Amino acid sequence: MSRQATRDDEDPASRWWATAISDISPGVIRLRGYPVADLIEDASFAQVVWLLLRGDLPSPAQARLLERALVAGVDHGPQSPAIAIARMAATCGVGINNAMASAVNVLGDVHGGAGQQLMELLARIDADDALDAVRAALADLKARGIHVPGFGHRFHPVDPRRDPLMAAVERAVSDGVVAGRAYRVATEIERQLAPIPMNIDGATAVIFSELGFTPELGRGLFVLSRSVGALAHAWEESGSGLRNKGPIPRTSLPAYTGQPERRVGHGG
Amino acid sequence: MSRQATRDDEDPASRWWATAISDISPGVIRLRGYPVADLIEDASFAQVVWLLLRGDLPSPAQARLLERALVAGVDHGPQSPAIAIARMAATCGVGINNAMASAVNVLGDVHGGAGQQLMELLARIDADDALDAVRAALADLKARGIHVPGFGHRFHPVDPRRDPLMAAVERAVSDGVVAGRAYRVATEIERQLAPIPMNIDGATAVIFSELGFTPELGRGLFVLSRSVGALAHAWEESGSGLRNKGPIPRTSLPAYTGQPERRVGHGG
Amino acid sequence: MSRQATRDDEDPASRWWATAISDISPGVIRLRGYPVADLIEDASFAQVVWLLLRGDLPSPAQARLLERALVAGVDHGPQSPAIAIARMAATCGVGINNAMASAVNVLGDVHGGAGQQLMELLARIDADDALDAVRAALADLKARGIHVPGFGHRFHPVDPRRDPLMAAVERAVSDGVVAGRAYRVATEIERQLAPIPMNIDGATAVIFSELGFTPELGRGLFVLSRSVGALAHAWEESGSGLRNKGPIPRTSLPAYTGQPERRVGHGG
Amino acid sequence: MSRQATRDDEDPASRWWATAISDISPGVIRLRGYPVADLIEDASFAQVVWLLLRGDLPSPAQARLLERALVAGVDHGPQSPAIAIARMAATCGVGINNAMASAVNVLGDVHGGAGQQLMELLARIDADDALDAVRAALADLKARGIHVPGFGHRFHPVDPRRDPLMAAVERAVSDGVVAGRAYRVATEIERQLAPIPMNIDGATAVIFSELGFTPELGRGLFVLSRSVGALAHAWEESGSGLRNKGPIPRTSLPAYTGQPERRVGHGG
Repeated sequence: MSRQATRDDEDPASRWWATAISDISPGVIRLRGYPVADLIEDASFAQVVWLLLRGDLPSPAQARLLERALVAGVDHGPQSPAIAIARMAATCGVGINNAMASAVNVLGDVHGGAGQQLMELLARIDADDALDAVRAALADLKARGIHVPGFGHRFHPVDPRRDPLMAAVERAVSDGVVAGRAYRVATEIERQLAPIPMNIDGATAVIFSELGFTPELGRGLFVLSRSVGALAHAWEESGSGLRNKGPIPRTSLPAYTGQPERRVGHGG
Repeated sequence: MSRQATRDDEDPASRWWATAISDISPGVIRLRGYPVADLIEDASFAQVVWLLLRGDLPSPAQARLLERALVAGVDHGPQSPAIAIARMAATCGVGINNAMASAVNVLGDVHGGAGQQLMELLARIDADDALDAVRAALADLKARGIHVPGFGHRFHPVDPRRDPLMAAVERAVSDGVVAGRAYRVATEIERQLAPIPMNIDGATAVIFSELGFTPELGRGLFVLSRSVGALAHAWEESGSGLRNKGPIPRTSLPAYTGQPERRVGHGG
Repeated sequence: MSRQATRDDEDPASRWWATAISDISPGVIRLRGYPVADLIEDASFAQVVWLLLRGDLPSPAQARLLERALVAGVDHGPQSPAIAIARMAATCGVGINNAMASAVNVLGDVHGGAGQQLMELLARIDADDALDAVRAALADLKARGIHVPGFGHRFHPVDPRRDPLMAAVERAVSDGVVAGRAYRVATEIERQLAPIPMNIDGATAVIFSELGFTPELGRGLFVLSRSVGALAHAWEESGSGLRNKGPIPRTSLPAYTGQPERRVGHGG
Repeated sequence: MSRQATRDDEDPASRWWATAISDISPGVIRLRGYPVADLIEDASFAQVVWLLLRGDLPSPAQARLLERALVAGVDHGPQSPAIAIARMAATCGVGINNAMASAVNVLGDVHGGAGQQLMELLARIDADDALDAVRAALADLKARGIHVPGFGHRFHPVDPRRDPLMAAVERAVSDGVVAGRAYRVATEIERQLAPIPMNIDGATAVIFSELGFTPELGRGLFVLSRSVGALAHAWEESGSGLRNKGPIPRTSLPAYTGQPERRVGHGG
């Protein structure tokens, strides 16, 4: 236990790790300026998430809207790769943090990126001229052979998370909590794409956009949310007693589609 | 978009991935039996975390106590390895999910495990005979040369998160939200170890124990919490414009303490 | 491009990152004292692996034996969790390095640890009194309900990697390349456990032990080896065109074994 | 131990995990058609890397050239983020596989991607008209404000790995082992960029291109190579006795550049 730690603005190592997020010194932890004790006492988890990412505390109504998006994304079952990975990892003799890490590590451009991509698209479309601007944007995507991110779902005809999330946005617009620009654009996209509805990535992208998050943070918020499912599934699987759980039951073997047997030095 | 997905209890692949957490089929997402729309509407994030991990919804008071522990652990600055890793990763051209994964992956037995270890210890000590039981447990740890997990801090003389967390537990005990057994044992440990105070790992371990979480889930909850800091720091660093940020400024080079120069085939 | 980097033994940041492995300064890269150009010119990959881990170059015969163990472990197909993870990750929009990382991250105490455990066991058993020492060690494991690590295989009656590896060790013993102590103990274990044969973890553990690697490095060497399979499978899967490949075909859904539907506020 | 595993071409789960890389069934492991015993006996590690990635065994000369590139990239010291991460992870109480995973996970577009990008560039430039084609390509990159990947180095005036690698390519061209197209283009780029020399990413990109690897596999091969350094550094650091090693010495604290202290509910 060394208590000599000091902060020295002349120290290049101190400056190399400068941050505006947390102010840590012996006996002191302040996050974005707030003593951590105040936050433990008075702030919700969603408010603190917002505070760390954005620099200031949100209003309770803003935090509540964020929280709904975080709730919506927690899990989509073992059929999704990240959750399957968390479960397999949990049988391999690693810590639960490692299982969570292997899982969220795959929430990439395809598995977690549709929301981020829609946020980028929403930011580029003029909400004041939504009908024409959306038409042009969709035509452009179509010409480039790109699916509209955040719409349609592999197996949900209607994603059951869409309606409650969009209803919450609508109320937030009515209440003046958010401005409604992303909402107007996204619902216009949905109208023009009908009958293909918005999915979870789309609906959360609308919320994150309305709340002023950047697209990359939208991805990060989804990672936070899905981490809950990864943890829950890793934990459930760790109770199964299985060791080195593979992707398919042990009575099945992967099919082999390669070269027939051959020998080194004999035609190899 | 395939809509033929079916659930077939005779299908070994379906059974291999059986879960009691989420019930997903076309148009349906239920978590622990609750339609996801209900949860988006009515549940806080902390309640949903609890629901997925435990199987039932907690009371608002239980969820609020959990939330305080989640808030307390979000960040401890770039001096801690996980946060430094998140920041370095963010300059290497990987996704923000990858930066978060590399970070939480190191919340292992040493970086994230003290709370888990204290939870195991608290579970073994008889709260009804705390004075003697703690004395025996501490003597045993001392004899085996093991630090008491969750007490003392590398540089905080008093961890500023201890008091607000323990005050919250005390109120929860008074209000009958929790039983107070882990609280009694932990404060008795603190009394006997004085002047070494409980730290964040200790205080959150008390909360998780009081709320009935298993030790391994205690670690998982800390991972969720610290993921917020990892995300915030990765994002802040990604705005620095640095590429391949190393651990020390570029004007410094790691010292070399190894063999002097030698040549292959000449004494090598 | 900054060329002011200097090494200053008074600089605490330099000392904090001191290493005996690599000596890097402007225009200079020496590994364990050898100019990197010499190694590129004259050393095999296995020799350089050894050099970095052990501090000195091995003889060609030692390097060749190490290389056989590295070859043996490269792949065991998509049925194993690490390889399945690499393949699923490759469909999620992350880099190939991320797919490899999520994969090797699960080579933990269960998936990759049997070799490490056997190395620890071999180090404790007296090779000069192998018959009795092995008998005692196996009785002790049996009494504690522990499987002998590195023996038996989930589905190979005889692991096809055992014989060529053990034949190579035998030749190395004959040739005086290694002393044969671990070999004697391991074959005595196999004799007493008959008909349960040594598996890949066991046979590579013998090689790593004979070559003087510590048990933890044994795990590390297996990780290096299996990284090849992770890369190959990630790459093959990335050509499949699948997006977010789950563990089972999309016509199957995970079985649900949890609570029937219930509503928040109505019995929840 | 279940020995009922069968391969059934009608089983959708088997087909979902089909692979042309490894043929695994009870008692049988064949890689790309070769019995694993043959490979253990007769193939070098570099040959097996090639075999798994490409489908056929390379000639010894091809394998030797690949091996030189693998040797060249093993380490660049703790100043580089991946190596620093491996070392910090090793002090956090995780397995050595986890330390390696957190490390290679950051070998992304910036940390590991220059070689891949140069391979893509080399593939697009006409080697038969290198002078003009390179001139046009460089002008195009310049116009778009993009650094030429694989050239110049943050602190090496001349990267000491360049010369031995390029000398090896030159010999391989003379010997007819490779065709020399990528080599011609890359050296023409270097001539036109003079005095900015090729770096390790550039020189290995030339080798991987000459040997017919795709750009993405170039990244993968670098990951394999650098995994060795990650392992060696994780192992060395695990001997330091440090716990939760941060990026800078404990006498330094990160500078804080954010909001002054403020209180929740008082202007927050």
